[in-house]
Amino acid sequence: MVVGAFTENFVQAAPVLVSKKNIRSGFCSAVIINSGNANACTGRRGVRDAEKMIEVTARSLKVPSRQVLVCSTGKIGVPLPVDRIVRGISKAVHSLDQRKMIAAARAILTTDKGAKVAFASGRIGGKKFHLAGFAKGAGMIEPHMATMLAFLMTDLSIERRLLNGIFYESLDQTFNRITVDGDTSTNDTILLMANGVARNQKIFPHSEEAKFFQTLLGQVMESLALQIVRDGEGATKCVRIEVRGARNDKEAKGACYAIGNSPLVKTAFYGEDPNWGRVLAAAGRAGLPRQSIAKAGATLAPEKTDIYYDKTCLVRRGETTGLKNERKAARVMRKKEWNLTMDLHLGRGVFWIYASDLSLNYVKLNSHYRT
Amino acid sequence: MVVGAFTENFVQAAPVLVSKKNIRSGFCSAVIINSGNANACTGRRGVRDAEKMIEVTARSLKVPSRQVLVCSTGKIGVPLPVDRIVRGISKAVHSLDQRKMIAAARAILTTDKGAKVAFASGRIGGKKFHLAGFAKGAGMIEPHMATMLAFLMTDLSIERRLLNGIFYESLDQTFNRITVDGDTSTNDTILLMANGVARNQKIFPHSEEAKFFQTLLGQVMESLALQIVRDGEGATKCVRIEVRGARNDKEAKGACYAIGNSPLVKTAFYGEDPNWGRVLAAAGRAGLPRQSIAKAGATLAPEKTDIYYDKTCLVRRGETTGLKNERKAARVMRKKEWNLTMDLHLGRGVFWIYASDLSLNYVKLNSHYRT
Repeated sequence: MVVGAFTENFVQAAPVLVSKKNIRSGFCSAVIINSGNANACTGRRGVRDAEKMIEVTARSLKVPSRQVLVCSTGKIGVPLPVDRIVRGISKAVHSLDQRKMIAAARAILTTDKGAKVAFASGRIGGKKFHLAGFAKGAGMIEPHMATMLAFLMTDLSIERRLLNGIFYESLDQTFNRITVDGDTSTNDTILLMANGVARNQKIFPHSEEAKFFQTLLGQVMESLALQIVRDGEGATKCVRIEVRGARNDKEAKGACYAIGNSPLVKTAFYGEDPNWGRVLAAAGRAGLPRQSIAKAGATLAPEKTDIYYDKTCLVRRGETTGLKNERKAARVMRKKEWNLTMDLHLGRGVFWIYASDLSLNYVKLNSHYRT
Repeated sequence: MVVGAFTENFVQAAPVLVSKKNIRSGFCSAVIINSGNANACTGRRGVRDAEKMIEVTARSLKVPSRQVLVCSTGKIGVPLPVDRIVRGISKAVHSLDQRKMIAAARAILTTDKGAKVAFASGRIGGKKFHLAGFAKGAGMIEPHMATMLAFLMTDLSIERRLLNGIFYESLDQTFNRITVDGDTSTNDTILLMANGVARNQKIFPHSEEAKFFQTLLGQVMESLALQIVRDGEGATKCVRIEVRGARNDKEAKGACYAIGNSPLVKTAFYGEDPNWGRVLAAAGRAGLPRQSIAKAGATLAPEKTDIYYDKTCLVRRGETTGLKNERKAARVMRKKEWNLTMDLHLGRGVFWIYASDLSLNYVKLNSHYRT
């Protein structure tokens, strides 16, 4: 059984198009993944190549081809070297081994610094079950599109509809709350497979068992999502940005992303500079109905707004709390991970995201001359 | 007579709040400008300080205080050293000289590399008139808020309502089409003053004379706006991004800003890397109704989309036109200024903007440790 989510970009890579079709069957016997070439913007040939990868995998494993999904990550706009990949698939099938998940986690990386894996296990109805996942994040094989891929597996027995609900709720709390540079890849894919081997009793919606599994899934997905931010392109910081006291959650979200994607805020994170004016100004423009800024942005009254870096209050009612606190905040910013909290004091809306900084290495990695 | 426009940020600096009130009088005898301190997020004291600057200027020049406007640029959140400024105002008033516009253009700079001025003149109804402007752009006195200030002056005699219409139309075609980093300052201000000294005949709306003045004003404002992009923080490129064939102008605009503000696209501009996949993917996510991305984004069908770098077609119907063209495009990108054109082939919507690149110097300038 499988549930999944794919990039919402209007430009979708061939493997995404093909996998979206196959996932409708509800079953997944294999996922074939290549890194080095994203098979994106490759037209009809790209779709044929993705289908070929599926066919060969299905034939080698003797499973129906509609139960095979495909993911690619790497260069965009370059035809897939499909013959080399087909040869690779045969080799891969022959070396399949249930102890090799970490090897797979390593194999899909592009310029990620390390493999990203997470595990959990528990008991439901007296039966032990396991949950494992691996992911790759915002790295590049050559200065190209960053792609987020994540694969989660469990031996829990659970109905697809329930699994789907739990999956999307966890997705919303984890992978949909991270930003490295605000760009959305053409290839993003996340899959959760469940094979029922644990043979546990039926899990009912809203039951304690369902909640327990959701907690575990949330932890594993959050771990993978955070590993992606921490290993973001050139990232040196992972900042949890929380906006509370907004008129509603949607406006809190708009302010979170305006802050987390502002180049001025992100360079200040990198420079460990407690430059709260940039944070306030970024949130202040979140509500503007123009340019590339969401209408979902926050209404903000500067004279009511407080800003905290961890527990240090830098801004109270829109004004500085003094140099002593700025120095304290500067010490907070030396940490690799810290919390920025903004309270708008306008209502009960709240949202949080994790954001990386914008470093010299980000620019070096992404401006490298390619042709 | 004066017309003007101010930042739309919800967080507005004290000089903006005070000037917005005074501009309602419709007349402006003087503008007092300081750089080094933005007088933003400074609460009631900030407003009193801005009013003090106005009062002292009005008294020294013997003009009504409601005919004086005030602008500040520089550090945010730091109280204005108002006594020093008051002393400066007396000095400035005594050294007023009609030949000193360039000195004023220099005086308001922060880390701009050079003064930004533009001139034009013409004849209307047999009378010669002049138009002059100066501006400052995305520089920083210390790693702080970038502020855009622009001041335009003409001796043309023109009714305020007509002047206002022409001003806003020109604004929409020039200053509202540039982006350095997508951030909106708390202090942005642009003013156009007309004193009627040219004693020309009355100018009627929609007349040849009105159109002629609009053309000239558009040229002067475009010149200043482009000087700001070219001198953007760390900027090495100024790229005109045009999206045509969108379903409507609004969607074309959404795609323009998604491209022009994408860190991945901007680092590729800097690296002179014809990485069209990033351009296509940025436009592809413009239409997504989530995060910090406008709902006004473009609907896009990759299989219909063409991309040109100057006249080199890099992408036809969503696919590469080959390595030879990529090499040609790489040569285009070595220029300081070039045109990126995307044709969506979906309708008649069109928009264009000017964008700078994202360079190592941008990060160096903005991450400098401040406290």
